[in-house]
Amino acid sequence: MAQAAAAPAGGEAKKLWGGRFTGATDPLMEKFNESLPFDRRMWAEDIRGSQAYAKALAKAGVLTQEEADTIVEGLSKVAEEWAAGTFEVKPGDEDIHTANERRLSELIGATGGKLHTGRSRNDQVATDTRLWLYGQVQMIRGALRELIAAAADRAEAEVDVLLPGFTHLQPAMTVRWSHWLLSHAAAWQRDDERLRDLLPRLGTLPLGSGALAGNPFGVDRKFLSHELGFEGRVCPNSMDAVSDRDFVAEFLFAASLHLVHLSRWAEDLIIYSSGQFKFVQCSDAYATGSSLMPQKKNPDALELIRGKGGRMIGNLTGMMAVVKGTPTTYNKDFQEGWELMFEAADTLHDCVRIASGVLCTLRIDPDRMRSGLSADMLATDLAEYLVRKGVPFRETHHISGAAVKLAEDRGCELSALSVADLQGIHPLFGEDVVEVWDFQRSAEMRDTEGGASRRSVLEQVAKLRTYLAQQA
Amino acid sequence: MAQAAAAPAGGEAKKLWGGRFTGATDPLMEKFNESLPFDRRMWAEDIRGSQAYAKALAKAGVLTQEEADTIVEGLSKVAEEWAAGTFEVKPGDEDIHTANERRLSELIGATGGKLHTGRSRNDQVATDTRLWLYGQVQMIRGALRELIAAAADRAEAEVDVLLPGFTHLQPAMTVRWSHWLLSHAAAWQRDDERLRDLLPRLGTLPLGSGALAGNPFGVDRKFLSHELGFEGRVCPNSMDAVSDRDFVAEFLFAASLHLVHLSRWAEDLIIYSSGQFKFVQCSDAYATGSSLMPQKKNPDALELIRGKGGRMIGNLTGMMAVVKGTPTTYNKDFQEGWELMFEAADTLHDCVRIASGVLCTLRIDPDRMRSGLSADMLATDLAEYLVRKGVPFRETHHISGAAVKLAEDRGCELSALSVADLQGIHPLFGEDVVEVWDFQRSAEMRDTEGGASRRSVLEQVAKLRTYLAQQA
Amino acid sequence: MAQAAAAPAGGEAKKLWGGRFTGATDPLMEKFNESLPFDRRMWAEDIRGSQAYAKALAKAGVLTQEEADTIVEGLSKVAEEWAAGTFEVKPGDEDIHTANERRLSELIGATGGKLHTGRSRNDQVATDTRLWLYGQVQMIRGALRELIAAAADRAEAEVDVLLPGFTHLQPAMTVRWSHWLLSHAAAWQRDDERLRDLLPRLGTLPLGSGALAGNPFGVDRKFLSHELGFEGRVCPNSMDAVSDRDFVAEFLFAASLHLVHLSRWAEDLIIYSSGQFKFVQCSDAYATGSSLMPQKKNPDALELIRGKGGRMIGNLTGMMAVVKGTPTTYNKDFQEGWELMFEAADTLHDCVRIASGVLCTLRIDPDRMRSGLSADMLATDLAEYLVRKGVPFRETHHISGAAVKLAEDRGCELSALSVADLQGIHPLFGEDVVEVWDFQRSAEMRDTEGGASRRSVLEQVAKLRTYLAQQA
Amino acid sequence: MAQAAAAPAGGEAKKLWGGRFTGATDPLMEKFNESLPFDRRMWAEDIRGSQAYAKALAKAGVLTQEEADTIVEGLSKVAEEWAAGTFEVKPGDEDIHTANERRLSELIGATGGKLHTGRSRNDQVATDTRLWLYGQVQMIRGALRELIAAAADRAEAEVDVLLPGFTHLQPAMTVRWSHWLLSHAAAWQRDDERLRDLLPRLGTLPLGSGALAGNPFGVDRKFLSHELGFEGRVCPNSMDAVSDRDFVAEFLFAASLHLVHLSRWAEDLIIYSSGQFKFVQCSDAYATGSSLMPQKKNPDALELIRGKGGRMIGNLTGMMAVVKGTPTTYNKDFQEGWELMFEAADTLHDCVRIASGVLCTLRIDPDRMRSGLSADMLATDLAEYLVRKGVPFRETHHISGAAVKLAEDRGCELSALSVADLQGIHPLFGEDVVEVWDFQRSAEMRDTEGGASRRSVLEQVAKLRTYLAQQA
Repeated sequence: MAQAAAAPAGGEAKKLWGGRFTGATDPLMEKFNESLPFDRRMWAEDIRGSQAYAKALAKAGVLTQEEADTIVEGLSKVAEEWAAGTFEVKPGDEDIHTANERRLSELIGATGGKLHTGRSRNDQVATDTRLWLYGQVQMIRGALRELIAAAADRAEAEVDVLLPGFTHLQPAMTVRWSHWLLSHAAAWQRDDERLRDLLPRLGTLPLGSGALAGNPFGVDRKFLSHELGFEGRVCPNSMDAVSDRDFVAEFLFAASLHLVHLSRWAEDLIIYSSGQFKFVQCSDAYATGSSLMPQKKNPDALELIRGKGGRMIGNLTGMMAVVKGTPTTYNKDFQEGWELMFEAADTLHDCVRIASGVLCTLRIDPDRMRSGLSADMLATDLAEYLVRKGVPFRETHHISGAAVKLAEDRGCELSALSVADLQGIHPLFGEDVVEVWDFQRSAEMRDTEGGASRRSVLEQVAKLRTYLAQQA
Repeated sequence: MAQAAAAPAGGEAKKLWGGRFTGATDPLMEKFNESLPFDRRMWAEDIRGSQAYAKALAKAGVLTQEEADTIVEGLSKVAEEWAAGTFEVKPGDEDIHTANERRLSELIGATGGKLHTGRSRNDQVATDTRLWLYGQVQMIRGALRELIAAAADRAEAEVDVLLPGFTHLQPAMTVRWSHWLLSHAAAWQRDDERLRDLLPRLGTLPLGSGALAGNPFGVDRKFLSHELGFEGRVCPNSMDAVSDRDFVAEFLFAASLHLVHLSRWAEDLIIYSSGQFKFVQCSDAYATGSSLMPQKKNPDALELIRGKGGRMIGNLTGMMAVVKGTPTTYNKDFQEGWELMFEAADTLHDCVRIASGVLCTLRIDPDRMRSGLSADMLATDLAEYLVRKGVPFRETHHISGAAVKLAEDRGCELSALSVADLQGIHPLFGEDVVEVWDFQRSAEMRDTEGGASRRSVLEQVAKLRTYLAQQA
Repeated sequence: MAQAAAAPAGGEAKKLWGGRFTGATDPLMEKFNESLPFDRRMWAEDIRGSQAYAKALAKAGVLTQEEADTIVEGLSKVAEEWAAGTFEVKPGDEDIHTANERRLSELIGATGGKLHTGRSRNDQVATDTRLWLYGQVQMIRGALRELIAAAADRAEAEVDVLLPGFTHLQPAMTVRWSHWLLSHAAAWQRDDERLRDLLPRLGTLPLGSGALAGNPFGVDRKFLSHELGFEGRVCPNSMDAVSDRDFVAEFLFAASLHLVHLSRWAEDLIIYSSGQFKFVQCSDAYATGSSLMPQKKNPDALELIRGKGGRMIGNLTGMMAVVKGTPTTYNKDFQEGWELMFEAADTLHDCVRIASGVLCTLRIDPDRMRSGLSADMLATDLAEYLVRKGVPFRETHHISGAAVKLAEDRGCELSALSVADLQGIHPLFGEDVVEVWDFQRSAEMRDTEGGASRRSVLEQVAKLRTYLAQQA
Repeated sequence: MAQAAAAPAGGEAKKLWGGRFTGATDPLMEKFNESLPFDRRMWAEDIRGSQAYAKALAKAGVLTQEEADTIVEGLSKVAEEWAAGTFEVKPGDEDIHTANERRLSELIGATGGKLHTGRSRNDQVATDTRLWLYGQVQMIRGALRELIAAAADRAEAEVDVLLPGFTHLQPAMTVRWSHWLLSHAAAWQRDDERLRDLLPRLGTLPLGSGALAGNPFGVDRKFLSHELGFEGRVCPNSMDAVSDRDFVAEFLFAASLHLVHLSRWAEDLIIYSSGQFKFVQCSDAYATGSSLMPQKKNPDALELIRGKGGRMIGNLTGMMAVVKGTPTTYNKDFQEGWELMFEAADTLHDCVRIASGVLCTLRIDPDRMRSGLSADMLATDLAEYLVRKGVPFRETHHISGAAVKLAEDRGCELSALSVADLQGIHPLFGEDVVEVWDFQRSAEMRDTEGGASRRSVLEQVAKLRTYLAQQA
């Protein structure tokens, strides 16, 4: 191999382009390469994984029981140091695996050097990460279920508050405030289901795959899987096991979609708390003022959640773009995935809890909501009145449209049209048409499963609680 | 409302900025707004959904049985026209729903106008799309299982071909060609599982949610769900039902991740078929020549698949960015999602089948693969030799590294070092160390679950087949 | 090379996995590979490029002048066929280059086979695409300047309409409707500048780079560049020339950012046209009704523009992900970029023109805007009143905040506080404080460059027009 | 406003859903909201901006000269504290602006409270960020120009090294190693141009825009712009000024595209350093070993750069998705953009410098490169031989293809065919055809601008240096 310096143009060439780079190391590269600043978060999982592995090596006859015990105890001491904040990072500790093994050997001597037998950092890091994320997902699901439960509780308590329902942000029909709350809870339940569904794929064991070709010491991978809480599931192919980052991508997708849902919930509430709506107001705990304008109270928490939704889409995209097109098995590119994962787990957990805080402390103004109901939102009910008298819907839609137009031309409310006015449009309108002008009734009419009636809304609450109880 | 023309600055103002825009319509806007060019693909699902809805209206007493029968039969005639290619699109047919109802009413008269009773395009389009995508996912899963089966078959047949296994694209250890094949099949199985897991969420019925507030005519949504093959699952909240596009996002994610997997498989094969590797060669059916260079044979199919992976990430990102931050319930923005979905389903289906074609017709060159195995790939086995004699792995790793260095300095193969040379490095090397210089043995040593040994590889094949049989 | 069928496991193996794939071609692959369905849009550019190339070959002495003339004339006939819609696509016409050369040779015989001398489809397709996109960007910039001009005209005409200015969607300060219009025009001007800046990079010639190594017949690339309107700019390195897709990415970015701007403009208008705001109303030409609710009028054009913003982000992401990590020079993956480019150019052009239509026909309601101004939006002016009397701003901010609180406690408007009330908070409040309660004055006070005063707004209009005039 | 607790369902309701959230603050929200942990990096720019603003207030007569001097000096002391690492962060310092003003007032008393007169954090943060990023871009351009210069130097020194040029990763034609180096330098030059083009848009002043409506104290914004190094450029509209985050998006795009370029350069080198190629070898400073396999040397630096390319695409996507669809002017969502910007600037700077290090220390193996040249890569030259004898290229392409086929059938090199063999394919082949079998000659033939000849390559070097000299 010709050194750059010895390239055809001769030894002098090197100086031309390589002046700054002469040593055997580049401190910037060391910083660029090291992962300890972020992967130290997995110290506990790294130790759990190593303890299980030491036991498996003993079981396979590679370690004596005594050696394995020494290692397991030594690792417990390392864990204690981490927990107590006394673990001392040293130069050369480029990642959490190196740091822990280095410390272990300091504590127990040469036996520490037997721990890594048949193992590679490739299967080790995959194991640590899965263990860490598995715990995070369970914690996040707990917070998410609290959010759903809060929505259900509030929906039940405020079931009689009416709200203008919008489509295209235009007033559409009367619904219940609780119906709106539950529409978001329905999305959050799907988010929880997606997190639940990824658990078995995430909780599958790569340990025992070595660098890529498998383990030559016959470690019992099913034993390892049970030992680490993965119920016997093991990655079926060692090359795939060190290459597979699906669990990160799948988590980032589930996180992104949940934040997209929260961003829509936040968007609704930001609009509902604007000066022209004033349906709701954020608690002071989740709003801030302006450095210039004394009257301002801004829904910062909601805006941050909406913004996090955008960023999380970026995290997902970044992960997919990192992995796409790389050769299979392990590549260093994958290190980028850990930072995305750590950031995403924290952000998701924070957002779910902040959303709970906002939801639980939000003030609502039922009167403002009610005053947002306008008679033209009953135009569909007017059409349905005629449907019940046998007129085809497509026709009643035009008839009701004509009534809306007449009211507009007159500059009056739709409900201010007289029965005679309406009969002028269609003869089947009768005196009982006045019953249509009742927002409460409009909501009550939607009494099918999932509809806006009181009964349906309370039924939705009950179903949500059943779901939550099943997951707990 | 002041018309722009009547704004404070006076009637003349309009001419300044509005010269081109005076009519009541803008033909460009009509094109911009219409969805028939792409949503016509769902004609069959739109008709199935409407037929079920007519039955439900009859069941609810809104239609007479005769009316419902007339509608169902009329719709069947519309379907026949689509199937025969004789359906005539007319001006004003802005989407598939409008087109079908228009044609129905032409065929059966005023009764056709009763079909849309209590229904909105909001719940209708959500229903059509779910039905369409549900069918697509099942079809795609079929193609995907064929791809997995082909990999399993080929892995079994070619189990004795050895391959240099790479990490970081550097020669690492000896594996089997079949082990590589199965590493991709393992990823594809997860992809199939993800598609399977989204089916229940996708196959949940929005119909009966109206525009947003629910259905006021008491249609039996469970009946509708069963009628349409969704096994009784219904969307639990009507506002969410017309707002929820999770199923598109989730499908796009599953599609993206599968294409990311295929892109990595393609990357491997592109590299393996390069002039310096020549491990494999694409069949002429999946390669093309150059317009300038007569000797070229380019792996176009693989490059296109790799490229589609990038584009599909874009589709996923686009979908998430479309939905993020929109107010809840229905917004017209969502129309953008359909095109992404149609394109993604076609692309995914094509890529899976092209991948099958490439895989089934790929020539391999076992001799080139074998000649890619170099003695230094046995350095780990050399270390393990000493491990078995009781030396801690961490130490053996350094010893083996010293042997690699010695061979490098001598300019010889690692396996060309004599026993004496090795004993000079560590006294525990014995005559039997020559057994280490055997690539086949190296693979056979990895005999744990998921490892590169013959037994393990065939076990993987058997498990894949069991999985496939369970899904069929 | 061992055929798959002749792999170690023997000839029978093939049947196991390759049953469906036995022929020399796969019709699905042909469809997958062909680009004519989308690249036919560049027929004119492909012909222009070839005509210039024929001239360059003559200039280099590779063709006789007569041969070159024959080719140029033949290509003109091909162009006439495309223009007349009579060009007949034949089997084997996999892309526009092949189709045009095939037809040329049919028309002029063997001389047609001399056209491709020293050229590759690699430099040809890069040339065609740059020519095509160059024309599109110029056309789109024309439409964009019309949009900016419309905003300027409208801003001038309606300069006296006051609008509540929002931050965080909370009422903040009084501005002019025109100030809002111009805030968007300012962003659009940057978008136009970005499109302008990419033109020189886009308009740089790859032709004469061959497949990757350059042209061996000494064609004069500067001549080609001038001939094709690229003012002598040529790609400096042939390997880069066939590899570079920056111009597509840069265009997609410029398009995405413009659509992000339009999405924000659309979001404002969607909110301003909601039932609780009613500041503006879309013309019927850009709104649609509901299939269920007769009273609805939805701002579909604005929602579609907002949605397109999301999709365009996906196109940009897709392009970046396609190119990332590919080996340099040409790869077939890049074909994916063309579809993204075609779709983006059409979408961008449509959106700009639809936005013009919406803007030019939008009705505004100055009275509703005015009634949205609330006295607490003058709290900052109240603080500034004291600043002018020497009180440090940080202190006045608290004083004004106290006044806001007092009014809130009293349940009255801030402006309803008496001078005595205010003096109770701070002694420097005088009788002249009542001048603060004037929204018009509040806007007029912001008379620095870029502020909300009438003068400043009209100055902004003048500057925009100067910019537009310079670009024309 | 009804408190949640006083909602219709009565005071007990609150306990149901709000148990955990009763206080006026939520510590998690405070952490969620604060930006000091990342925006403290802009302490110097925040102080520079404030010092300029104090001067402008004095110039406008709002502050006395003495007050302004006191503030400017006080801020210098704050800066000294930051520089010395003695600045003490206190509770309530939620962002860098608050922290600096708080400290200023501690140091100079009440006069400090006059600094923020007429200013808002909205225009302040926009100013700080632009100042910070402006400096970063200049620094990064410096590093980028060093990278380009290194490529030029190395290209000149190693101009005689031949390399197989690939398309589709298949051997295509003979080029020079330097030609490959310069193909990447050409892309990097465009990246530098893009960074240069964004400077004027980035270096435009928002200060003096207040919260959104402009500055009411007549500060001279042109003076401020000059004072801060922005050459008189000011944002033209105050609402846009506090809303515009284009400069972040444009920087992220430029950064992403540069990293995409580096990812492709890295991909080439990763492949060229694989065991089957061995064209190049990374210096030990930029490679690492394996924890399991003693012989491994992995090109980690290159893989990390490739991975960063994927992540940066995510950052760009995230930024676009954060901004898309937000209402105009300031929203708290934008805070998310700063973290993306900080991370991107660091990553970009690191990657450029690491790439320089790798490039300057890379060993190349000219013999391995040379041995990668195979005779069939001269097939195009063979076709061109006949073109020079008057045969149409399209025909010669087939003839040369036939020769390739003949050599393949014979199992010999293309160059091993005898003149008689070739004459059997076409009579115009003469004795001089043997001159074609010369790789050096093949490269030299490509002597047009941008081609692979020695002259052309050295001309490219000269042009790059001219560009670099102009930018310095």
